[in-house]
Amino acid sequence: MKKLVNDVSDVLAESIDGFAAAHADIVTLGDQRKFIRRKDLKPGTVGLISGGGSGHEPLHAGFVGHGMLHAACPGQIFTSPTPDQMIAAAEAVDTGAGILFVVKNYEGDVMNFEMASEMCGREVATVLTNDDVAVEDSLYTTGRRGVAGTLVVEKIVGAAAEQGRGLQELKALGDKVNAATHSMGVALTSCTVPAAGKPTFNLGEDEMEIGVGIHGEPGRRREKIMPADAIAEEMVAAITHDMPGKGKALVFVNGFGATPAMELYLMYHSACTQLEKHGIEPVRSLVGSYVTSLDMAGCSITVTLLDDDLTKLWDAPVHTAAMRWGV
Amino acid sequence: MKKLVNDVSDVLAESIDGFAAAHADIVTLGDQRKFIRRKDLKPGTVGLISGGGSGHEPLHAGFVGHGMLHAACPGQIFTSPTPDQMIAAAEAVDTGAGILFVVKNYEGDVMNFEMASEMCGREVATVLTNDDVAVEDSLYTTGRRGVAGTLVVEKIVGAAAEQGRGLQELKALGDKVNAATHSMGVALTSCTVPAAGKPTFNLGEDEMEIGVGIHGEPGRRREKIMPADAIAEEMVAAITHDMPGKGKALVFVNGFGATPAMELYLMYHSACTQLEKHGIEPVRSLVGSYVTSLDMAGCSITVTLLDDDLTKLWDAPVHTAAMRWGV
Repeated sequence: MKKLVNDVSDVLAESIDGFAAAHADIVTLGDQRKFIRRKDLKPGTVGLISGGGSGHEPLHAGFVGHGMLHAACPGQIFTSPTPDQMIAAAEAVDTGAGILFVVKNYEGDVMNFEMASEMCGREVATVLTNDDVAVEDSLYTTGRRGVAGTLVVEKIVGAAAEQGRGLQELKALGDKVNAATHSMGVALTSCTVPAAGKPTFNLGEDEMEIGVGIHGEPGRRREKIMPADAIAEEMVAAITHDMPGKGKALVFVNGFGATPAMELYLMYHSACTQLEKHGIEPVRSLVGSYVTSLDMAGCSITVTLLDDDLTKLWDAPVHTAAMRWGV
Repeated sequence: MKKLVNDVSDVLAESIDGFAAAHADIVTLGDQRKFIRRKDLKPGTVGLISGGGSGHEPLHAGFVGHGMLHAACPGQIFTSPTPDQMIAAAEAVDTGAGILFVVKNYEGDVMNFEMASEMCGREVATVLTNDDVAVEDSLYTTGRRGVAGTLVVEKIVGAAAEQGRGLQELKALGDKVNAATHSMGVALTSCTVPAAGKPTFNLGEDEMEIGVGIHGEPGRRREKIMPADAIAEEMVAAITHDMPGKGKALVFVNGFGATPAMELYLMYHSACTQLEKHGIEPVRSLVGSYVTSLDMAGCSITVTLLDDDLTKLWDAPVHTAAMRWGV
């Protein structure tokens, strides 16, 4: 295992401390590193909280700040955070308008956020993301997995929360964005969890995993490596198959951690060519490694159909460690 | 070779086209992809132009836009752009106040930018960056290499150009920032140039290259992998050894392309601990993969000593594909 780490049991703590120090103008760290919260809270706005296993950085802590999340709860690597983390985060950011959880559809996360909802003694609603079209039930999920599209939900709902929209309206908005959002991923290599010290799965030198999950869990099938255009064609076909419509869209090409920008932009080029054949018009773009799987090589494509309201909320100012504009 | 590509001879063109499409609000593409220029030019400001071999994305095209570069010339992968590219870029962005080239100290780049200066029939000055403290003369350089610190020069000089400062003042500022900036890198794996199809160099499963260049060229020595803290200690010692002073600084931890954010933040944490021992106080931070070597795993640390003028220029609004704030 080749990683820039010290003792594997300290990886998460040292990385979180580095993150909090590098972005001390935006975030503060909760007691015992239970959560990362934004420094400034606006009284009377709904507190938007997400979280999940670590190893997907910058998701979620990198999206904490003005116009996006109020707090993020980091679990151990690829392990759900515990209910006491979400309860502590809710306590820290609730200004009286209630709390909205954004939860990726993975069994551990769903269970722990549900427990937190019941135990935290506040008005809580939850948006469950399940944008991954690759598989229905999977290794760690009932139903589809919540993957890179979660970022889009967090950005758009975060902008609406900043405007002061109410809890039920935000919950409905989050569900709407999730329904308009479809993703699919491919892996060229496995990731390696530091504590395991070896690759999560094995791929031959000429193989790829089509439809991979963000923990390296299996997708649709294993295949010989294909040209980028053929990969994009298959991913876009899967994404558009279940799409509720056509028209203007945000196209988000996401790197899984070890894929350089040059390849991601090449995939963006391929994806747009394919999407236009399916009647999807890319009007907003995001290209980069935002929802990662440690050091996995590969990428996902996420498409969100945009109406005027969603476009304005996507464009609204945001000031977080990993996404910033208009501020 | 595992990459998201089609024909290896099309990698650069397809990636540039994807970049230009994804960021069409900021940049436009020159004829025959000779350069990427910002859409809006401010008459009477010096045109800031950089460029170099491709494979270091987002450097340089990702830094084209308001408050940073006016144009970037992409060479073939790890190969200098040609003088006709710089001449065409100068033609496109010169509004009468002259042209400043920012050139990384590599022999091919230095020669080609010099030829362009002589041939382009405009008032031209050049800032040569040579921030890499790892080695003196090296495989492709006389003197020290220009690496990740080039980003800092481009940001600070770009902000000053936006203010309307004159050509000679900007040249002096660029030289000052370069002198205040020191970098060093380590590689855990080689990069693979698509056209070569195999790793540029070979590292054993338990080895790292200390002082590596941004094309995978040799550094100081090959060593068994060390803990992150020991790596940071050695890098910081090398950086501060030649530092012209102490005090407030920008600390920039840069990923080489295949290193995930979790490890970069961990290295930021280590680097800051070490820097404080040397009397360096981190007051600004940048953590991410900005000056890469294709799919190389590893990172560099760059430190720039900041005075009030440099700090204000670093903080000034910037709107590029890869760095954006205040706009």
